[in-house]
Amino acid sequence: MKLCIYNDNKLGVVENEQLIDVSEALEAIPQSGWPRPPGDAFIANLDNVKLLAGTLRKWGFVQRHTSVKIHSPVANPTKVIGAPVNYKKHLEESIQDEGIHFGSKVKTIEECGLFLKQNVLVGPSEGVALHFPDRRNDHEIELAMVIGREAKNVSYDNALDYVAGYSIGLDMTVRGPEDRSMRKGIDGYSVLGPWLVTADEISDPDNLKFEIRVNGQVRQKANTSDLIFDCRRLIEYASSFYTLYPGDVIMTGTPEGVGPVEPGDVMHCEFERIGAMDVELRKA
Amino acid sequence: MKLCIYNDNKLGVVENEQLIDVSEALEAIPQSGWPRPPGDAFIANLDNVKLLAGTLRKWGFVQRHTSVKIHSPVANPTKVIGAPVNYKKHLEESIQDEGIHFGSKVKTIEECGLFLKQNVLVGPSEGVALHFPDRRNDHEIELAMVIGREAKNVSYDNALDYVAGYSIGLDMTVRGPEDRSMRKGIDGYSVLGPWLVTADEISDPDNLKFEIRVNGQVRQKANTSDLIFDCRRLIEYASSFYTLYPGDVIMTGTPEGVGPVEPGDVMHCEFERIGAMDVELRKA
Repeated sequence: MKLCIYNDNKLGVVENEQLIDVSEALEAIPQSGWPRPPGDAFIANLDNVKLLAGTLRKWGFVQRHTSVKIHSPVANPTKVIGAPVNYKKHLEESIQDEGIHFGSKVKTIEECGLFLKQNVLVGPSEGVALHFPDRRNDHEIELAMVIGREAKNVSYDNALDYVAGYSIGLDMTVRGPEDRSMRKGIDGYSVLGPWLVTADEISDPDNLKFEIRVNGQVRQKANTSDLIFDCRRLIEYASSFYTLYPGDVIMTGTPEGVGPVEPGDVMHCEFERIGAMDVELRKA
Repeated sequence: MKLCIYNDNKLGVVENEQLIDVSEALEAIPQSGWPRPPGDAFIANLDNVKLLAGTLRKWGFVQRHTSVKIHSPVANPTKVIGAPVNYKKHLEESIQDEGIHFGSKVKTIEECGLFLKQNVLVGPSEGVALHFPDRRNDHEIELAMVIGREAKNVSYDNALDYVAGYSIGLDMTVRGPEDRSMRKGIDGYSVLGPWLVTADEISDPDNLKFEIRVNGQVRQKANTSDLIFDCRRLIEYASSFYTLYPGDVIMTGTPEGVGPVEPGDVMHCEFERIGAMDVELRKA
């Protein structure tokens, strides 16, 4: 099932070009007081939401998904985790390009581990507001995994059991000397969309073709089969440091071809078995 | 006012050695559905909670604060921000000690900026579960600022207007080659306590003496007057990258004297105008 948050926090099921309104399924999400349980309440209650959505889709209002404003399918993640230099050819370009490594030694993912982005996501309709326009701002397209239930010290073999679904992720990045969690954690620099494809629809997340075009020009074109730490390993590894909660997002890393974008540019992102989205860039 | 979360998420006002139960003041916090507004609901509603607490303290049950289990005063921060190498003498020890820098070039805070820790806090009663016992795990005591309201691109002069209060912070750290947000973001590696001292009680956060003793031995002893980026500058700087939300925590950085701890050790932390807390270490 492809679940899409759109317009005024409505919920839709996407089937081909159609978006079917199933917003009443959101009533499966309980209210909460303080302190709140960690995690995103939509993802934490996804099984019940899906059950209701499956019934409601028979009667829901239908429109084209291109006619709505699409938001991130996760509203309140506890964590957004990034995986640096997780494609071999991106590691090579990072070593060669002073504009990427900025004088720091480029480590492998085995050395530098993972990092945290700010846990605020935007969807394609919000676009990205570029900060620090005098510095290089890069696109980085990647597969995003959305965690479905609490996970700690998960084994490699069981890792995908903890995934609620997949989306396209953009790990927008300002180049410079600062720690990744600052340069990549800027407001609006984590894009998730266009919808959540539930895990049952993607049996092998480690074999998905994807690409990003900027103003029509292909910049990155790869397959998740080239990941250094594959999806299972990323979950196993992340969960050895962090407890993962429902709605936590793991951005799996970006392949070669990263490059600068400017206000006014449009990034067209496509992922096999997920879909496509356009994301506009503007000045903050 | 010193506001303390204790036992089964009760709220108390601390006056000298006394803890006065004002839990009914928590009724000022509204329930929320999905999506939730960003930020911690207790801190976001702090003005109303304080108003009620001020009345309730006249009749509340009184006990010694040493007789309860004390939790973090912030339950659901959107962000926990760290400030690396923000004391000159800690910068110097980091350059000299291979066990701290681990072969990476030690940058100044102007170069490396801030970083994100996992946004899950523990209080003194939970203690710290040390991960990776074969690696060096260090204590780092620091002043923690709790943000009171949404803040973006805040000016230096107005920065303290955005502070709800102050607590003692522990930025527990595993040494190694990984990014700070992984080594310092481990489950339970961010301690906040023993309570929130509201901002009106601390007119100058940049002049507070503090120390940490491990098993009775003084390890770090300093004054926030030696901060490189002072409290106002940290808020100004953080808010140029991130929107700050109520309950976001800025750990202001640790002074010289960081060193390893082991399961079984007890860290005694004291901060002028805030108070003291003991935090026990155990094996994860």
